[in-house]
Amino acid sequence: MRFDRLWRDALIATLDPIRPGLGLIARGAIAAKDGRIAYVGPEADLPAGADAAETIRLDGRLVTPGLIDCHTHLVYGGSRAKEFEMRLAGATYEEISRAGGGIASTVTATRAASEDALVASARGRLDRLLAEGVTTVEIKSGYGLDDETETRMLRAARRLGTEANVRVVTTYLGAHATPPGEPDKDAYVEKVCALIPTLARDKLADAVDTFCEGIAFSPEQTARVFVAAKAAGLPVKLHADQLSNLHGAKLAAEHGALSADHLEYTDDEGAAAMARAGTVAVLLPGAFYVLRETHKPPIAAFRKHGTRMALATDCNPGTSPVTSLLLIMNMGATLFRLTVDEAIAGVTREAAHALGLGSDIGTLEPGKSCDLAIFDVDTPAELVYRIGAAPLVSRVIRGA
Amino acid sequence: MRFDRLWRDALIATLDPIRPGLGLIARGAIAAKDGRIAYVGPEADLPAGADAAETIRLDGRLVTPGLIDCHTHLVYGGSRAKEFEMRLAGATYEEISRAGGGIASTVTATRAASEDALVASARGRLDRLLAEGVTTVEIKSGYGLDDETETRMLRAARRLGTEANVRVVTTYLGAHATPPGEPDKDAYVEKVCALIPTLARDKLADAVDTFCEGIAFSPEQTARVFVAAKAAGLPVKLHADQLSNLHGAKLAAEHGALSADHLEYTDDEGAAAMARAGTVAVLLPGAFYVLRETHKPPIAAFRKHGTRMALATDCNPGTSPVTSLLLIMNMGATLFRLTVDEAIAGVTREAAHALGLGSDIGTLEPGKSCDLAIFDVDTPAELVYRIGAAPLVSRVIRGA
Ligand SMILES: [Zn+2]
Ligand SMILES: [Zn+2]
Repeated sequence: MRFDRLWRDALIATLDPIRPGLGLIARGAIAAKDGRIAYVGPEADLPAGADAAETIRLDGRLVTPGLIDCHTHLVYGGSRAKEFEMRLAGATYEEISRAGGGIASTVTATRAASEDALVASARGRLDRLLAEGVTTVEIKSGYGLDDETETRMLRAARRLGTEANVRVVTTYLGAHATPPGEPDKDAYVEKVCALIPTLARDKLADAVDTFCEGIAFSPEQTARVFVAAKAAGLPVKLHADQLSNLHGAKLAAEHGALSADHLEYTDDEGAAAMARAGTVAVLLPGAFYVLRETHKPPIAAFRKHGTRMALATDCNPGTSPVTSLLLIMNMGATLFRLTVDEAIAGVTREAAHALGLGSDIGTLEPGKSCDLAIFDVDTPAELVYRIGAAPLVSRVIRGA
Repeated sequence: MRFDRLWRDALIATLDPIRPGLGLIARGAIAAKDGRIAYVGPEADLPAGADAAETIRLDGRLVTPGLIDCHTHLVYGGSRAKEFEMRLAGATYEEISRAGGGIASTVTATRAASEDALVASARGRLDRLLAEGVTTVEIKSGYGLDDETETRMLRAARRLGTEANVRVVTTYLGAHATPPGEPDKDAYVEKVCALIPTLARDKLADAVDTFCEGIAFSPEQTARVFVAAKAAGLPVKLHADQLSNLHGAKLAAEHGALSADHLEYTDDEGAAAMARAGTVAVLLPGAFYVLRETHKPPIAAFRKHGTRMALATDCNPGTSPVTSLLLIMNMGATLFRLTVDEAIAGVTREAAHALGLGSDIGTLEPGKSCDLAIFDVDTPAELVYRIGAAPLVSRVIRGA
């Protein structure tokens, strides 16, 4: 057997669900052939005569599946640093709003930005994620709130996937907020629904998301968007139960959503419904930290019902200006008390399921895409424990 | 006038106390001569005929004083990742202790580490700080708890200051904890005091610190260490009021301490005493975050009394495995509600005062050491607002 590439002497966290915990293999080997994993297991069990065009010795370094950031708003115009500064100096939300702050300021700046400008500013943030081992990133639209800008955001996201060495999954989030000056939420939801078939046809969106909250869209409006997405053949996901319990988790599960995200106020019934539907709970501790929330997502209920739990940066200019997925793993452990294994599974295997890509990425199993992150740490726990470290040695995507 | 180096077209945050806020100068210039700042001000006011061996155009980039991390435990042996993992998996403190965890595990590993090994492991952490713009770092001993290892830790810290391009300030923290197996705290305090004159003579310690807390040393024992330090001509500082109010802040002020650090439980009287004595409040939000503390330091009292406030990583393996001073600035703002200006002053001007170096570093004024951090950001607020960004362009120490 001749492989394209062979990594030897690795501590491998396979995340293979048939193995306990992280599915660790000490003194392991991984081989890639045509971009896919052709072998993963103990070095000692490598097929006799196994050979490769390139062999890399890892001296016991840790190999994990390439990290997956399954919820970001990476593409946007402008900055909200001024607003952050004003709020700390004691400005009220009204004063910030009068000064042009809040999501409206991001909408204005995004509408004014060219596709090139959106790609360039997002690229800086994306590169920070890649520097930590991310090989797949989800990017949402949602700061245009009109057909033209939403489409431009999705095109920018797609371009990032070709210009940078990363797999990009796009999500149409037209129903993120009501556009400034639009008094009729229902009329806007109708517009959002009307754009979906075009985005599906042009393959600009891989999924459709909605923000279901008192300050955003109602469960009924959310359901209308979900129906339109399904009609166009696109899977759905939901910003749910972040600030109050509108039973968004249950709604998402009822519509077979890939994921429901945030979930600070989700109840036991919602957690159970998600488990039954296979809807992944995407936890976003960055926003929890920035907003100084105290109401935590129901981790115990997720564990009890077997709801899958993922972790993501939620990178966005307002509530989570975070470009470190390793820090998010630490926040998941520190703030939400996830275990080390849950935190690592949350940015690999579980995050893959949140994107509907569980059969292709997220674990190291023969036949899957050979997406790897290689770290200079003694134990997997170091990835979660250290804050501000830079342990990545290299990334591999599709075997290269 | 011929300078050695001249930086032009900079947005300069001088932190000069005679200017308001950050002492910003737009379209500014800074010149270095013999390692010191020879000019800082508007480009337009540069002396006629000003020239330099090297001129660097910054295209509007931000220049701040080199960042100062004024409280770290950067030198230590071993790792506490295993203990972190066990705690998240539900282990009790007793179980962790039985498994060899806690500070005792760090003491054991530090005693077993050679000076070379201590330098090498700390170097990895130090390099992370430098990558963000740190030009001065304080390093404490305190994991040896015997004369030989404490001395070796301080020698390792000194070596980091010669081997890496950074200014290192050392602190003897023999009174960090009682050594494992030592039942008599007073006897240990006597040993700690006895080593001070030797460390002062050999110039291994620039200051002396103590951990004053129920689980560590009493105010009376602390005072004994302070008296010994003063007799040897060394300034003092204190880990004070972190878990309870033992009036450590007031005690530190009474002894003219450079700083009192942590201060979660400090009261108004302590804050006032510190202001009168010029003792800097060093806030450590990393440990606050890791320990999920809810009792915050009395920021309003510090503001009311005019107590100086600094921010530091407290980098240590148990309660703050943090090597990002930028993240600490964000935590100071997010968790303690410091303003952007306070957060930036806290790692520059105020941190310099916490080390007794206020006349030499921490602001950009003629005659001070030319220690700079140059950032690719539009506004100073970006430094505090972003989480996980890497804005540093370059560092300058003593003009080079
Ligand atoms: Zn989001
Ligand atoms: Zn400390």
